Amino acid sequence: MTDTHSGNQTPTESKSSDDRDPLFARIPRRDFMKAGAAAGAMGAFAGCTSLLDDDDLASASDVDATVPPGEHDDYYAFLSGGHSGEIRVYGVPSMRQIMRIPVFNKESARGYGHDDRTSEMLENAGGYTWGDTHHPRLSQTNNDYDGRFAYVNDKANGRMARIDLKYFETDAIVDIPNTQGVHGACARLPDTDLIFGVGEFRVPMPNDGRDLDDPSAYTSVLSAIDPETMDVVWQVLVDGNMDNGDGGKDGRWFFSTGYNSEEAVTESEMSSSETDYVKAFDTPAIEEVVDAGEYEEVNGVPVVDGRKDSSLNDGSDPIVHYLDVPKSPHGVSVTPDGEYAIASGKLDPTATIIDIERLAEVDDSNDAIVGQPRLGMGPLHTAYDGRGHAYTTLFVDSQVVKWDIEAAIEAEMGSEDPVIEKIDVHYNPGHLIAAESYTADPQGDWLICLNKLSKDRFLPVGPVYPENDQLIYIGDDDEGMKLVKDTPAYAEPHDASMVKADKLDPASIYDPDDYEEEFISAQDTDIIREDGRVHVKMHSVRNQFGFHDVTVQEGDEVTFTVTNVEETPDMLHSLAIPQYDINIKLAPQETREVTFTADEPGVYWMYCAFFCSALHLEMRSRLLVEPAE
Amino acid sequence: MTDTHSGNQTPTESKSSDDRDPLFARIPRRDFMKAGAAAGAMGAFAGCTSLLDDDDLASASDVDATVPPGEHDDYYAFLSGGHSGEIRVYGVPSMRQIMRIPVFNKESARGYGHDDRTSEMLENAGGYTWGDTHHPRLSQTNNDYDGRFAYVNDKANGRMARIDLKYFETDAIVDIPNTQGVHGACARLPDTDLIFGVGEFRVPMPNDGRDLDDPSAYTSVLSAIDPETMDVVWQVLVDGNMDNGDGGKDGRWFFSTGYNSEEAVTESEMSSSETDYVKAFDTPAIEEVVDAGEYEEVNGVPVVDGRKDSSLNDGSDPIVHYLDVPKSPHGVSVTPDGEYAIASGKLDPTATIIDIERLAEVDDSNDAIVGQPRLGMGPLHTAYDGRGHAYTTLFVDSQVVKWDIEAAIEAEMGSEDPVIEKIDVHYNPGHLIAAESYTADPQGDWLICLNKLSKDRFLPVGPVYPENDQLIYIGDDDEGMKLVKDTPAYAEPHDASMVKADKLDPASIYDPDDYEEEFISAQDTDIIREDGRVHVKMHSVRNQFGFHDVTVQEGDEVTFTVTNVEETPDMLHSLAIPQYDINIKLAPQETREVTFTADEPGVYWMYCAFFCSALHLEMRSRLLVEPAE
Repeated sequence: MTDTHSGNQTPTESKSSDDRDPLFARIPRRDFMKAGAAAGAMGAFAGCTSLLDDDDLASASDVDATVPPGEHDDYYAFLSGGHSGEIRVYGVPSMRQIMRIPVFNKESARGYGHDDRTSEMLENAGGYTWGDTHHPRLSQTNNDYDGRFAYVNDKANGRMARIDLKYFETDAIVDIPNTQGVHGACARLPDTDLIFGVGEFRVPMPNDGRDLDDPSAYTSVLSAIDPETMDVVWQVLVDGNMDNGDGGKDGRWFFSTGYNSEEAVTESEMSSSETDYVKAFDTPAIEEVVDAGEYEEVNGVPVVDGRKDSSLNDGSDPIVHYLDVPKSPHGVSVTPDGEYAIASGKLDPTATIIDIERLAEVDDSNDAIVGQPRLGMGPLHTAYDGRGHAYTTLFVDSQVVKWDIEAAIEAEMGSEDPVIEKIDVHYNPGHLIAAESYTADPQGDWLICLNKLSKDRFLPVGPVYPENDQLIYIGDDDEGMKLVKDTPAYAEPHDASMVKADKLDPASIYDPDDYEEEFISAQDTDIIREDGRVHVKMHSVRNQFGFHDVTVQEGDEVTFTVTNVEETPDMLHSLAIPQYDINIKLAPQETREVTFTADEPGVYWMYCAFFCSALHLEMRSRLLVEPAE
Repeated sequence: MTDTHSGNQTPTESKSSDDRDPLFARIPRRDFMKAGAAAGAMGAFAGCTSLLDDDDLASASDVDATVPPGEHDDYYAFLSGGHSGEIRVYGVPSMRQIMRIPVFNKESARGYGHDDRTSEMLENAGGYTWGDTHHPRLSQTNNDYDGRFAYVNDKANGRMARIDLKYFETDAIVDIPNTQGVHGACARLPDTDLIFGVGEFRVPMPNDGRDLDDPSAYTSVLSAIDPETMDVVWQVLVDGNMDNGDGGKDGRWFFSTGYNSEEAVTESEMSSSETDYVKAFDTPAIEEVVDAGEYEEVNGVPVVDGRKDSSLNDGSDPIVHYLDVPKSPHGVSVTPDGEYAIASGKLDPTATIIDIERLAEVDDSNDAIVGQPRLGMGPLHTAYDGRGHAYTTLFVDSQVVKWDIEAAIEAEMGSEDPVIEKIDVHYNPGHLIAAESYTADPQGDWLICLNKLSKDRFLPVGPVYPENDQLIYIGDDDEGMKLVKDTPAYAEPHDASMVKADKLDPASIYDPDDYEEEFISAQDTDIIREDGRVHVKMHSVRNQFGFHDVTVQEGDEVTFTVTNVEETPDMLHSLAIPQYDINIKLAPQETREVTFTADEPGVYWMYCAFFCSALHLEMRSRLLVEPAE
C-alpha cells in the first residue's frame, strides 16, 4: 500500500520564478539606490553598472598578457575544482591550464584511485568517490610561499587533503571527525604550523542519530590539523556556524566568518539577524587549554569549548572573540602587513575592518572594528596588491571594487569615499585572488576574478555552462583596473592561490626513496606464485613491459608491481588492462602496484596508454587467464 | 611455500636506456640521411630540424589569434581525452577549454555516473570506471557537419559512445562484443549512417578462455554500429589487425590501417614485415552478404568472413581489399574531394596515396596506389586545407610537413619533391586536425597539432607532464605555416574534430520531454513511503529545495527525484548529500534521480554545490536518518 504524506517533513513555501532571490527583500531600499545599481538589483543576472564605460573595456588590449609559444608564465595559480573534487594548475598571465591534480576524485589518466596506494588512501579517508574542494592554500615559511605543499578542504565530507608540490600529487587525506561541511582550508602563519578546517554545517556531536531534530544541540567546530602528520590535534566548539577563514601573520590569530549565528535550519531563519559573527581564535591560548587538559575527548580528538558562555571565554582574554559584523559575513582575509582582518558583508553592502593589535587590548571585542566602508551589493571576498588597496568582489553588482584601506579607517562608518574604482566582471563573482595576496608581500600585478556565471561570454555548450575566470591587470594605479582575458572554467573553481614561478621547484622524475613500493629493474623482473596469489614484478621501458605474456589461473589474486625505469623526463608509461578496469600511470622512475582477481578467462592485451614512442602501439603484452576447469 | 619461477612466461630481453627506440634500427640508414635529420634521429626526444629558422618562429605574432573578453571563438574543437575517458570542447582560435564531457569516466561536477540514469548506462556498458577515448567524430549530412552527435571509441574496453550535441552529454554507450581494443571511431559518409569501431587487439572469438596461447586463432573485426540505436549490426573478420580508419565520401568505402599483418604477439615480430595492410571495406557488398545470411552469428552479432582467403574475397570484387603499404601504416584519411585515401607509413618515411575510383576497377588492389611521397621520419596522420595540400605529422622529426597531393601523384614514388614546407612542433606529434578537414569542404585556416610531449614548453608541474596542443595558422600559402600558440593539455588527447561554430545549436535549458524522469514542480513536491522504500519528489529553485527536512529510517531505500524548475539559462543547482557520496547536477528544467540506502543514522545537510545566488550557502536542507532501534 502506498502511503502519501508529509509526516514530520517541512515543505518549503512555493516561489514564483520572479521572486527567487530573497536577498533583495532584506536589504534596505536606500542601499539599492545608493549603490546606483537599480538595474543590477533586479536579480542575480541583471545588468551591471560600473565606473568604467565601454571605451575603458576596449582598452583592455593595452595590457600585454601574451605568452608566446615556448615562453613560460610568470605565476602558477592553483584553482580549486569545486565539486569536481580536483585542483587545477594554471599559468598566469596566459591563463592556460597546465595540469590537473585529482584530490577527492578518482581519475584514470593519472591512475589516481586506480593503483593500490591511492585507492587505499581514498578508502581510508571515507571511501567517497567525490569531494568539494574550495580553498587551496600553499604552505608558507616566514609569511612567504615555500613551495612545499598545498592544502585543500572537502566541503562535502569534512576532509582535508595535502598536495605534495614536489610531485604535484595528493599525498594525504584526513577524514576530520565531529564535523560536516568543512569549508575553509587555511593555515596558521607565518610558518604554516597548523592547518584549519572551518566547520560550516552544524550537526549533533557525535552525529550518530542522537539529537536528530534538536538544532539547539547541533554544534560546529574549528579543527586544527598538524600539517606534517595530517592528524587532527584539537577542535574548538563554537556558537553559530563558520564558513571562510584566514590566519593572522604573527602566529597568534585565526579569523573565521559565519552566516548562521541564528543557529537556524532554514534559509529565511539563517539570514534573519542583522549581524552575525566574525570569530577570532587566540590559538596559543587554545593550545594552553589543550595542554592543561581542559577538553572533552570526542572520537579521539580533544574538543575545547569555545562557545560564548564557556568559562574559557570569561574575562578579558577569551580564547574565542565574537565580533558582531553585518550581515551573514562571507569572506575574511588578513592584510599583507598583518594589521587588519577584513570581512565582507554579503547581505550588507559594507566590509568590516578589524584592527588585530587592538583586538588583544580592548575589553569589548567589537571595539576592534575600526572601519566599515560601503562597497556595493553582495561583497564576498577581498584581495590585496601590497600598495594599501583592497579589491572586493560584489556578487550582486557583478563588479570588483578597488578601495583604500587606510582611507576606509579614517572615513565614517558606511562611507563610500574610500572607493577608488569599480570594474564590471562577467558575472557574479565569488572569490578573487591577487598575485601572492595571502603572503606578506603581494606582487600587485595580476588579479583573477572567479565568476560563477558566464551567460553569453563563450560559445554555447549546452545547459551546463562554464564559469568565467577573468584576468584583470591591477599594476597601474593611474590607468586603473584593466580586464584582459575571459577564461572558461569547468565547474566549479571557488578559490585560488597565486605564487611566483621561481618559488616552486617540482621534480621531473621520481625518487624511488620517496615511496614504499619496490623498484623493479629489468633484472628484478620476476613472477612469484603462492597459493592462488600471483605477484608479477616487472619493469617497463620503451617499447615493452618486462614480460611478453603472463599466465594466471581463473580466480587467482594477482598483484602487478611495475616500475617505469626510464630516466628521461616526460617519458611516461602506463599499464592498462582491458576489461579488468585497470590503468596505472608510471612516470619515470615511478613504481605502482595494482591488485585484482583474475575472474574472467581469456586473453587481455595489457598496453601502455601514454603515447611514448613511434612503437607505442606495439608496447603491449598478453595477460592469459586460464579457465579454472 | 614460495615458488619462484617464470613458468610459461616469456620475459622480454633487457634493454639499456640508450637503446630504447628500436624504430631507428629498422629504418634504412639512407632515410636518416635523406631526411637531413641526423640529430633528430638520435632518439624520440632529440632536437628537430625545420625549413623554418628562428626568425620565422618569431613572426608567429603576425597572426592575430586573440579573442578579446566577451567575444566568441570561430570554431568548436572536440578533443578526445585519452585515458582520462572524457571529451573536451575547445574554442578556436583562443584554444580555451570551454567544457568537458565525461564519457567513460565518472565525474561528479556534472553528476555523471552519480545519478541513477547515467550510473545504469555505465553499468550496462560493462561497469568500467574508465575508458580510453581516441577519435571523436561528428555526425555529417551530405559530407558536412550537421551538429547532431559526436561519437568516440573506448580503446581499452572495446566500446563506442555517442554524445548528444543538443545537451553536450553522453547519451549512449555500446559494449561491442567479439572485440578488444577498439581504436578507430569513424563513420560511413556522406550521411553518417554507420559508425565503425576498428578492432586493434587480436583475441580469440569468443574470448572465453579458448585458444589462449594460440595467436593463429586470434581475430580482429571491424564493427558496424547503427548511429541511432547504437546496436552492432554486423562485423567483418579480417587478417592482421587494424588501428585507424576513415570513410570515403560516397557511401561505399571504409579504409583502415593496421600495423600487425604479421599477426604476432611481440613488438619486434609485429614490426618485422616491410609492408602491412590498408584494408578497404566495400560496405554495400558486405551488407549484401549480411542480407543473404552468409555470416556466423557470434554473441548475437552477424560476423562476416573478410579474411584474405575467404570465399567472399574471391574474384575481382572482394568485400575487403588488402593493399600492401609500407610499413606499419598508422593514420589513414580520405581527401575532401573523396578521390584519395592517404595512409602514413609510421616506420617508413612515406605516405601512400590510394586512388579510390581506381580501386573499384583494378584486378590487383595494389594497382590503386598512385603515389608515395617521401615526407620525413615517423609520418602518422594527415589533414587537409581544401586547397589541394596535405599536412602530415612526423612523429620522430617533431614536424608537420605540408605537401601537394597532385604533385605527389605526378612525382616518382619516394620523391621528396611534393614537399612544400616543414614546421617544427614541440614535440613528437600524433594526430593533427585542420578546420573541418573530415568534411568535403575544409576551411583551410586553423590547424591544431596534438603533440605527445611538451618537455620544456611550460612551467614544470612534476613528473606528469602536460601534452602540447599547438595552434598553427595555415591560411596563407605564400607566407607559410605559422606557429601561433602552445596549449598545455591534460593527458591524453589523441584526435580531434573542428567544426564552425554556427553549425551547432545547443540547447541552453532542458526539454523535459527529452528524458524519462518525472518533472517535479513545486506543486508536485511530495514524499511517498512504502515498505521500507521512501520516494522523495522535490523541486529546487533559488535558494531552496522542496523540503526543509526529510526524515527516513535507518535501512530505508531512498530515491530522490529532483527537478531544477529554473527557466533561466546558466542557473544550475545540485543535490549534494555529505557522507552518502551523492552529488547530482540539475541544469534548468532538468530532473535527475538518485537511489541509496540510508544506512548511517544522523543529520546530513543536503546542499547545492553550484554557486547559484547570494544565498547559495543557505540553500540546504536536512536529511534526518533515524536510528533503527
